Amino acid sequence: METRLPTGVKDFLPVKAAKLDYLQNTLRSIYHSWGFRPVAPAILEDLSVLELGLGTDLREKTFRFDDRQTGRLVAFPPDITPQVARIAATRMRDMPLPFRLCYNGRVLRHTEQQLGKDRQIYQSGVELIGLSGPEADAEMIAMAVMCLQAVGASGFTIDIGQVEFLRGVLDDLPLDAAQSRDVRTAIAAKDISGLQQKLKGLPLTDRQRDELLALPRLYGGHETLDQARQVITNPASQKALDNLERILKVLTVYGIEEHITLDLGEMRGFDYHSGLIFQGFLSGFGQAVCAGGRYDGLTERYGFAAPATGFAFNLYNLLFALDRVLDERAEEGTDILLFSSGQDKAPAQHLAAVLRSQGYSVARDIIERDQAASLDYARRMHYRYLLVIEPAEEEMILIRTADGENTCVTSAAIGSGQFRI
Amino acid sequence: METRLPTGVKDFLPVKAAKLDYLQNTLRSIYHSWGFRPVAPAILEDLSVLELGLGTDLREKTFRFDDRQTGRLVAFPPDITPQVARIAATRMRDMPLPFRLCYNGRVLRHTEQQLGKDRQIYQSGVELIGLSGPEADAEMIAMAVMCLQAVGASGFTIDIGQVEFLRGVLDDLPLDAAQSRDVRTAIAAKDISGLQQKLKGLPLTDRQRDELLALPRLYGGHETLDQARQVITNPASQKALDNLERILKVLTVYGIEEHITLDLGEMRGFDYHSGLIFQGFLSGFGQAVCAGGRYDGLTERYGFAAPATGFAFNLYNLLFALDRVLDERAEEGTDILLFSSGQDKAPAQHLAAVLRSQGYSVARDIIERDQAASLDYARRMHYRYLLVIEPAEEEMILIRTADGENTCVTSAAIGSGQFRI
Repeated sequence: METRLPTGVKDFLPVKAAKLDYLQNTLRSIYHSWGFRPVAPAILEDLSVLELGLGTDLREKTFRFDDRQTGRLVAFPPDITPQVARIAATRMRDMPLPFRLCYNGRVLRHTEQQLGKDRQIYQSGVELIGLSGPEADAEMIAMAVMCLQAVGASGFTIDIGQVEFLRGVLDDLPLDAAQSRDVRTAIAAKDISGLQQKLKGLPLTDRQRDELLALPRLYGGHETLDQARQVITNPASQKALDNLERILKVLTVYGIEEHITLDLGEMRGFDYHSGLIFQGFLSGFGQAVCAGGRYDGLTERYGFAAPATGFAFNLYNLLFALDRVLDERAEEGTDILLFSSGQDKAPAQHLAAVLRSQGYSVARDIIERDQAASLDYARRMHYRYLLVIEPAEEEMILIRTADGENTCVTSAAIGSGQFRI
Repeated sequence: METRLPTGVKDFLPVKAAKLDYLQNTLRSIYHSWGFRPVAPAILEDLSVLELGLGTDLREKTFRFDDRQTGRLVAFPPDITPQVARIAATRMRDMPLPFRLCYNGRVLRHTEQQLGKDRQIYQSGVELIGLSGPEADAEMIAMAVMCLQAVGASGFTIDIGQVEFLRGVLDDLPLDAAQSRDVRTAIAAKDISGLQQKLKGLPLTDRQRDELLALPRLYGGHETLDQARQVITNPASQKALDNLERILKVLTVYGIEEHITLDLGEMRGFDYHSGLIFQGFLSGFGQAVCAGGRYDGLTERYGFAAPATGFAFNLYNLLFALDRVLDERAEEGTDILLFSSGQDKAPAQHLAAVLRSQGYSVARDIIERDQAASLDYARRMHYRYLLVIEPAEEEMILIRTADGENTCVTSAAIGSGQFRI
């Protein structure tokens, strides 16, 4: 029987789904502690409305179709930030700025099939709308760091850059779009020899060539800013360096400088990004687990000009990068399976209710089977204990599934709250 | 500027989104306490695979489109139960039964436009797969009751019925599909005079007519079962009554009989339902907030025969029915807005971190404005307090936004954990 899923989308079974829940809830609690309030944008948008907030990059990746009931073209958002920008710009515009908003949801994106990339992406993120300036950007980076610490990440780096820095270099060059893209790709890959090859055929001065060849090396700690200042002298790039310097200064006060790496040869991010961009990486995992940056022009596309900055986690990447850490944190086994052999189910129902009210997770084994089969089930389905109720006996047997160890407990002990597992 | 959403879908702004979060988290914790573990089915399905699990009713409501990257017809699930059935039947089939699974997600359904119905539905539900018998069905009803109590519902009713009861009556009659549907609609609406009119033109015996006219009245408490037994005598209906009797008996042990109403003239539910069906209603709200029932044939359509039962909440209906109750329970205002007038932001950053570590939600007002403007912002954006830090002063002023009341606090008091708001 054919039961496969469409390419690039997945089911999450209990162990992974519990980890996903843990990540969503933990991130949500950090957002809340920083004063961010939830929004839940619609699952569908009119394509023409959504596209106001999308650059070419995301437009090409958007799932779109005819709405049979209205005849309009509709779309599934490939990104939640433009939706939050629309909500801020339209339904919240009469409220005082800034807005601190957070969300949690799934987006769909067409991606290169041959790379086996996910098309369904679980996102969890925040948007800080109405604030310009380095403190707002630093707040985003500090929150990303707090979030990563809260979910149990130990070795991680936030790579920061600024779109105008590289743009300042490239805009001065007599290159067409294709040449410019080639050069950018080689710089981003830090592929110096490849970049040298590419530059040979291009109509550049020695100075321009030197600037471009310096870019892949502009990666590292605070000293990278000074190195960059010496090599790259156009005003736009210098201004970008000044901004990054100010953000770094705020991050030092937060005490999280150790997690920050400057990456000035990078111009990732979406078309809507302006100013600071950043990505978070866990050691040993090549994909970014979070990404964000400033997007000052986005809400204006919905008729309400406001500076803004934000970031989002890719929860699937985060889950995989932290898989082992989450084995312990997101333990979702059930505490107790109740087995009663008699016909009268009332004592078991009552006991289950008492245990649940004490915070335990409890299921009753209401299938017809013997105690050995019930214990086997409990073991295989990750129950911690089997509790065996004998009809007309005050004492019950508590069996630990991990090793079969037996203890006697009484319903009186459970009822009086003395029971602990 | 055109910024409208497609018909039947909505954004949730902070106040409502916080209520939605509260409902999702509270229900999830009840599911967990009953031993249910989460699954997160894919956002998209191949249409042909999904349709295995859908009856005509849901097939007609399914959003479908061509997947541009694969050329296959794909669909957005109109219901999560068939997805969980697929997962149980394929990816979990080697695990021991029963499966206790829960989920939380959004579905899309085409609906009658003229009624202004939602097409985007937030669902939260559970599936108990691998168990037949009244105890499993009673567990679903008992859980629905616990869930409603946990989210703060006071007056509510669970209407229960069984698809075979009405089917037993209708299958015996010489009616075509359209006539049968007409009769069913009048019975469901408890429209006795309309039903009398409809029956006049139909080729029925007096006894058949009497049975049909009795159905709308078969609504009420336990005594309804005896009334039904006297009027409706076909074996299928009698068997359904026996099953309902057994379920009611278990519900009496749970002590939740007071919430149960029998509704034997009702045959709602989806095409996949067999056996018990039920719906939950809050007093004063006409839409069902939850619905469920037995669906013994569904997993078999994915190659794995197993009895099953389950239910789901419609979170949007639940939110609206409980809107006022949730005003208090899902309070999502932020505790403190920090205002510091000086240039040195370090003390405010540090203080914010300390307060967050104590469980408070805290934002810093990093926009340039004076204290009066900051207080006005705090008030309008539902902060409970404004905390004013004066440079080089040990004492700070805490202003309650509700009434402007001032208190002095010191950072030493906050640092030592003596601070309480």
